[in-house]
Amino acid sequence: MTKLKTAVIGATGYAGFELARLLLRHPHVETPVFLTREERDSKRLDEYFPHMTGSGDLKLEGFSWDRLKQADLLFMATPHELSRVLIPEALKHGLRVVDLSGAWRLKLAENRAVYDFHDENAEVASTLDASAVYGLPELHRQEIANAQLVANPGCYATSVIVALAPLMKAGIVDVEHGVVCDAKSGVSGAGKTPTAKTHFVEVSDNLSAYNVFGHRHTGEILEQVGLKADQLIFTPHLLPIPRGILSTMYLRLKQPTSASVVEQVYREFYKGAEWVRVFGAGKLPQIQFSVRTNYCDVGFVLAEDGKRLIVVSCLDNLMKGAAGQALQNMNVMYGWSEREGLN
Amino acid sequence: MTKLKTAVIGATGYAGFELARLLLRHPHVETPVFLTREERDSKRLDEYFPHMTGSGDLKLEGFSWDRLKQADLLFMATPHELSRVLIPEALKHGLRVVDLSGAWRLKLAENRAVYDFHDENAEVASTLDASAVYGLPELHRQEIANAQLVANPGCYATSVIVALAPLMKAGIVDVEHGVVCDAKSGVSGAGKTPTAKTHFVEVSDNLSAYNVFGHRHTGEILEQVGLKADQLIFTPHLLPIPRGILSTMYLRLKQPTSASVVEQVYREFYKGAEWVRVFGAGKLPQIQFSVRTNYCDVGFVLAEDGKRLIVVSCLDNLMKGAAGQALQNMNVMYGWSEREGLN
Amino acid sequence: MTKLKTAVIGATGYAGFELARLLLRHPHVETPVFLTREERDSKRLDEYFPHMTGSGDLKLEGFSWDRLKQADLLFMATPHELSRVLIPEALKHGLRVVDLSGAWRLKLAENRAVYDFHDENAEVASTLDASAVYGLPELHRQEIANAQLVANPGCYATSVIVALAPLMKAGIVDVEHGVVCDAKSGVSGAGKTPTAKTHFVEVSDNLSAYNVFGHRHTGEILEQVGLKADQLIFTPHLLPIPRGILSTMYLRLKQPTSASVVEQVYREFYKGAEWVRVFGAGKLPQIQFSVRTNYCDVGFVLAEDGKRLIVVSCLDNLMKGAAGQALQNMNVMYGWSEREGLN
Amino acid sequence: MTKLKTAVIGATGYAGFELARLLLRHPHVETPVFLTREERDSKRLDEYFPHMTGSGDLKLEGFSWDRLKQADLLFMATPHELSRVLIPEALKHGLRVVDLSGAWRLKLAENRAVYDFHDENAEVASTLDASAVYGLPELHRQEIANAQLVANPGCYATSVIVALAPLMKAGIVDVEHGVVCDAKSGVSGAGKTPTAKTHFVEVSDNLSAYNVFGHRHTGEILEQVGLKADQLIFTPHLLPIPRGILSTMYLRLKQPTSASVVEQVYREFYKGAEWVRVFGAGKLPQIQFSVRTNYCDVGFVLAEDGKRLIVVSCLDNLMKGAAGQALQNMNVMYGWSEREGLN
Repeated sequence: MTKLKTAVIGATGYAGFELARLLLRHPHVETPVFLTREERDSKRLDEYFPHMTGSGDLKLEGFSWDRLKQADLLFMATPHELSRVLIPEALKHGLRVVDLSGAWRLKLAENRAVYDFHDENAEVASTLDASAVYGLPELHRQEIANAQLVANPGCYATSVIVALAPLMKAGIVDVEHGVVCDAKSGVSGAGKTPTAKTHFVEVSDNLSAYNVFGHRHTGEILEQVGLKADQLIFTPHLLPIPRGILSTMYLRLKQPTSASVVEQVYREFYKGAEWVRVFGAGKLPQIQFSVRTNYCDVGFVLAEDGKRLIVVSCLDNLMKGAAGQALQNMNVMYGWSEREGLN
Repeated sequence: MTKLKTAVIGATGYAGFELARLLLRHPHVETPVFLTREERDSKRLDEYFPHMTGSGDLKLEGFSWDRLKQADLLFMATPHELSRVLIPEALKHGLRVVDLSGAWRLKLAENRAVYDFHDENAEVASTLDASAVYGLPELHRQEIANAQLVANPGCYATSVIVALAPLMKAGIVDVEHGVVCDAKSGVSGAGKTPTAKTHFVEVSDNLSAYNVFGHRHTGEILEQVGLKADQLIFTPHLLPIPRGILSTMYLRLKQPTSASVVEQVYREFYKGAEWVRVFGAGKLPQIQFSVRTNYCDVGFVLAEDGKRLIVVSCLDNLMKGAAGQALQNMNVMYGWSEREGLN
Repeated sequence: MTKLKTAVIGATGYAGFELARLLLRHPHVETPVFLTREERDSKRLDEYFPHMTGSGDLKLEGFSWDRLKQADLLFMATPHELSRVLIPEALKHGLRVVDLSGAWRLKLAENRAVYDFHDENAEVASTLDASAVYGLPELHRQEIANAQLVANPGCYATSVIVALAPLMKAGIVDVEHGVVCDAKSGVSGAGKTPTAKTHFVEVSDNLSAYNVFGHRHTGEILEQVGLKADQLIFTPHLLPIPRGILSTMYLRLKQPTSASVVEQVYREFYKGAEWVRVFGAGKLPQIQFSVRTNYCDVGFVLAEDGKRLIVVSCLDNLMKGAAGQALQNMNVMYGWSEREGLN
Repeated sequence: MTKLKTAVIGATGYAGFELARLLLRHPHVETPVFLTREERDSKRLDEYFPHMTGSGDLKLEGFSWDRLKQADLLFMATPHELSRVLIPEALKHGLRVVDLSGAWRLKLAENRAVYDFHDENAEVASTLDASAVYGLPELHRQEIANAQLVANPGCYATSVIVALAPLMKAGIVDVEHGVVCDAKSGVSGAGKTPTAKTHFVEVSDNLSAYNVFGHRHTGEILEQVGLKADQLIFTPHLLPIPRGILSTMYLRLKQPTSASVVEQVYREFYKGAEWVRVFGAGKLPQIQFSVRTNYCDVGFVLAEDGKRLIVVSCLDNLMKGAAGQALQNMNVMYGWSEREGLN
């Protein structure tokens, strides 16, 4: 069987590097081409990442269209501005693309506004906005299989959508009451660029809320689960841990319901899903359970009134929240088992 | 001026030891008597706490009523069961008492049920339940000044009550909608006894929710801010940090309100309060700001609709959440400045 | 090909559980039997480890010789006292054994003294002391291949021996001057039992030296590299991290030597070794490079005088320092690639 | 009594801010002038440090000689390049100066070489190099009292010198054998500027050695304890904690000695010293014991041979290692108790 030819742009960031490591072990993928965002000289990967000592001649190459065009599938682990510029071009060359940025995730212009895109060709951009598939396989498996452009979901968004989508689909949520999502993430979610916010001394022994009423992932959640802007409050917090997200969601059910019914809603929705683990009623996941795996774990506790529901979901922001999900999407796009290369 | 004679029972726990250190530096207090819970031989304090090397002849003594009776003021840093037994006796001897446990905080029998007290003398217990003063000086300054028994608030409860009380008193909260409180605490709040839950490997790089719909501090909050049981959801989480609490509270206002009005409500309520810092609208406290101080910090963000309000409060669970507040209560009981010994 | 039948006693500890996970993914091994130390009822593995949710019907069974005898290879992840008792019996039943404890690592009675063994049958014990093979494949590959009983090395010992053995074999170390080894380990090395020493609040934001001039791993190092007791100082420190060891070693060379010669000594010695990575002169490993892998990384810096040498080695105490090395030993014992099941 | 007028340049760094907080509470010091390194507009201190909310009108002012000249004592918490330029000028204006940088600590040109100073006026610089007093009060109390310019010691250097000086003075160290110092520091020692090295994700769960055979503090140690360059190896490591240093020192005594004699050497040397705590033989300090205090703690273990000695010292790199020691120096310079403002 011929192996798939892949390329990764942005292999030096946290998500890009995690993806590089996953691709290197995937049985159906050729040694990938790792590219930086800029044109520049090649460098051995182990010079950049001493962790990779012993990985042989792997190179980190400067950006080049010539190299790119040799690939079948392109992963973009880049800022959304760059994804917005390069991807229309890459698609023209016939590449399939999985984009890890927020560039192509949103269907509604009102939600895209927060990104302030400056597209060179508005028409092309608009067409792609419409045709891009939101890459959460548990919701859009079929469309992903056929997609040219897959928009890999945000890390926070994944943790919230996986928890809410089954309940929303079942129509049991009192949406008028509103849903509160209190989310907490490890620092790798803030990226590799050193800033005051990611300095060890500022993060350790600390916790802080940020982007209150204004985080970019909010739009994805609204679109994917079908809530209106004033029906969801999403508040992220920065945890003093390197990786992992725990989201605690508070909502009301329309009618008093039993815990076993709620559990059934989840088990039904995720039947056959390889990478979502539904915990039984009253059992809650912790960040350590899913970190360094591609699982999104979901558990819940229902109040005695059968209406007030607390759902907790956990995932690894670099795996199911980024690189792992990108690989899962690749598996779906090429008809392989969703577990391939992720065990 | 004669100095106050104090004793601390339970000086070896985290809160008890923090209190011991504070008392040793307080200008109006004699060197305190430090007692263990059990009768046993004395030991130099620095044998128990190498941190205290150089602190001279300070002793940790075994429990003894003879020693206790020499004190004017007794601090109990003990499990609530022991506080429930010893305090009626201590009060009979004429001691004033500040109890750091949950033994005497609750006025309503329905809220006390969660503690499952087994009182030897139900009548005495009942009288004390009624006469004990909830030791949050910002709410009960006058009663504390005259109290025989002060029930020092729970750490989580303090962080929530300080944030909610002004809004509730102003009558602007839509209580029917319900209040969600998502709280996160450092590990010292779980006590010094080594357990699977406090093992470094289980806590580090992790986050977990616990006691969902069932934490003991819930009753205190309900009683102090005037909410009904089904109007408050309180969810604690265990943070991988040694100390500090951040509580994120979600609520709705009855009417669209401006941020400056909300800020005014807080500033009015805490006018003259030495140990609550009100942050301006849109400015949120972080755990690092108040840790190792006696401050409770409060900030908030109001949604554009003027109704959805997020309040964040932070404090150090061993200071304003335990020992610092106990000292503040002592200052109030004896008419000293509330800052005395806490700067 | 028939797969190997394995059993693990002590699968609930940190090393035992790590081993369980590795065995479950090993291509040549049947689903292993996981046993506790005591006889008791079986329990699903995911009840004990929520991390294992979704792993199906895997059981944690009570200890039973009947179950044990069905295995070809037994892993003991138990305290040394138990290993000392059970292993002679297991060998009688024809099982091959890899013991992760310190029970059978030492050849010299003077070094075994620190363990204070109480053997029922001193003669049998003595025979096994002599025949047990020290399970560091990089030093004893051939003996391990044929061994009935493999004594898996200590975590600290592995990090030191890997760094020193090549230099000692090359005969370039001034042993009279003495070797100083300053080692630092994460907390999982202290085991899973909660103690004051492993409480999060005691470990975090801290560092401490312990067992100075008296750590049990010292004897292993002496025997394996060929130093006398007064030629080695080994000082362990407890790091506020969950896993990983970094050892810094200080020694003098007999003659002024060039860095390239030293590098050559290492490269020669570890030629073909799958799980030791030699870093070039002046390049030092960090704990993050090898954590969650089976690598032991070694780097060094030589002073300008060509004599004073600092060697730094890193490994994951649960992988190359325990479970990973046990699996590597199994690979050697059964003639499989040393990378099998460890990538 | 008129209070002392002080100014701090560089009050926004970790050491500068720690110093600011200490000065604000010192009973003999007027509210200090806090200056940035550059000329720029003033800003309220609590805008820069939300921790300082409630501290009133305190300002952070742009650099200005006019403001500076109003001070009696100037603290420089600035990079050494700037200290090298500004201090000669400040001294001309009659200010006394405590410099927290490495600019004026070294007496020997060969040791200064590592800093690569570019002095405008070499003669003035040379005079100051000679007249500056090394600000370790435990060694140079008298000279500090009379000094115009005090060079506050390096954090690592303090931890090593405090441990070695008494032994060296007693003449019991086998200096020919050499002294090994393996030191470990928290991240605040690396400064506040965000870099790849201080990014939370790079530091947490990690440990690394750096500047092997080349750390700038080596020269200070050599000069202060009287060792030659080839008699000391000093290796720093970066710990995943915000603050604190632990140094483990390995040395040989000339003659077999008893632990009580070694303890006596320390107790004698530090008799009356307020800020060094000598732990008894066999008792070792930990970082937590001295963090957030001005103590340097020293303990040791002597091998049974009475010759091989391991000394462990701990301090807080921002207190005794920087700001606290600067305040202690001020106390000495003005004849106040060394504990003033530091309890």
